[in-house]
Amino acid sequence: MTETRATNITWHEGHVQRTDRERLLAQQGATLWFTGLSGSGKSTLAFTLEHALIERGRLAYVLDGDNIRHGLNRNLGFSAADREENIRRIGEVAKLFADTGVIALTSFISPYRKDRDQVRQIHREAGLPFIEILVDVPIAVCETRDPKGLYKKARAALAEGRGIGFTGIDDPYEAPLAPELVIHNDSGTPQQAATQLIEYLEAQGLLPATRGRSG
Amino acid sequence: MTETRATNITWHEGHVQRTDRERLLAQQGATLWFTGLSGSGKSTLAFTLEHALIERGRLAYVLDGDNIRHGLNRNLGFSAADREENIRRIGEVAKLFADTGVIALTSFISPYRKDRDQVRQIHREAGLPFIEILVDVPIAVCETRDPKGLYKKARAALAEGRGIGFTGIDDPYEAPLAPELVIHNDSGTPQQAATQLIEYLEAQGLLPATRGRSG
Repeated sequence: MTETRATNITWHEGHVQRTDRERLLAQQGATLWFTGLSGSGKSTLAFTLEHALIERGRLAYVLDGDNIRHGLNRNLGFSAADREENIRRIGEVAKLFADTGVIALTSFISPYRKDRDQVRQIHREAGLPFIEILVDVPIAVCETRDPKGLYKKARAALAEGRGIGFTGIDDPYEAPLAPELVIHNDSGTPQQAATQLIEYLEAQGLLPATRGRSG
Repeated sequence: MTETRATNITWHEGHVQRTDRERLLAQQGATLWFTGLSGSGKSTLAFTLEHALIERGRLAYVLDGDNIRHGLNRNLGFSAADREENIRRIGEVAKLFADTGVIALTSFISPYRKDRDQVRQIHREAGLPFIEILVDVPIAVCETRDPKGLYKKARAALAEGRGIGFTGIDDPYEAPLAPELVIHNDSGTPQQAATQLIEYLEAQGLLPATRGRSG
């Protein structure tokens, strides 16, 4: 890298490195990929963790249905091909976030092992941490919770002979074989689960000691 | 927003706000959209600016052909529909970056006014700054520079009667009618152009006073 000076600014030639951004943020970029059934509590967990990270002075951002399905992936439906493309794009965006030094938290059912493994692969190739988190809740519990009434709809459709490909009902959920972390999210609070996640990140050296507000 | 305490961490309920991330970063998220002919110097300018911003302690990230065409948009070609989708996706990703508090710098020819205006529109709807920067260089100058030999290829194809839809040769470049900034990039250095950009951002209140290293 060479340096030149123009006016009062120091100029560097050559690209900024990921490590330059990570030094600036005092953190390492990573993707935390939450996967699990509808109603397992992925989003609540992701947003709870995002809060805890920001509170600790860490830059985190949740990618979820709200900001993806109405934006980047608004032109995708629920066919097999579109579901695969949905996860592929989310994986690529999470990778860009991690490369920026951000902790990307993704909250999608992402039922197919192959699709998640592909996202893991592109992170590995880029030397970026990919943490797959199985939010594990028995489907009977998810179906009892059914916060958006989606299971009820899926059962009704199925009863009428119209399968809608709902994960866990008439479409498979392929649980990760070797996730970095399993959260048994059928008991306890989101805060307890988030604490487990933070302890994991600290143990992995992905999260430095708390900084920021002491109050 | 309510607060609960578990272990030694303060927990907040409800989503993190954009302003929380911006406070953490001590900067405002924004998209700086560079548009101009091939060879106009968009990427050099974007990377020069990225360096200057990081040097000032600001988090910035360049989205360009290298990290988009080989990743998120690897399944797009150069048909009219694919070009439109290319810009649409980049616009959506830039918006997510800006929402995270990052200064997103995009470096793409993005020749069609309608596509750029659509990106402006989604930023406006989200209340995010969108700065369109025309990197203005006469096509004759771009063609003389021709750093990647692309104009030469386009001319050769055209001479053989095979149009390839190359911007400025056999496909239109629709210059912005009201860009936030015009960089006349056929003279001067990238550093001078980047200085002009930084002065603009400061004048707009998008860039606070310099912090970080004094050396």
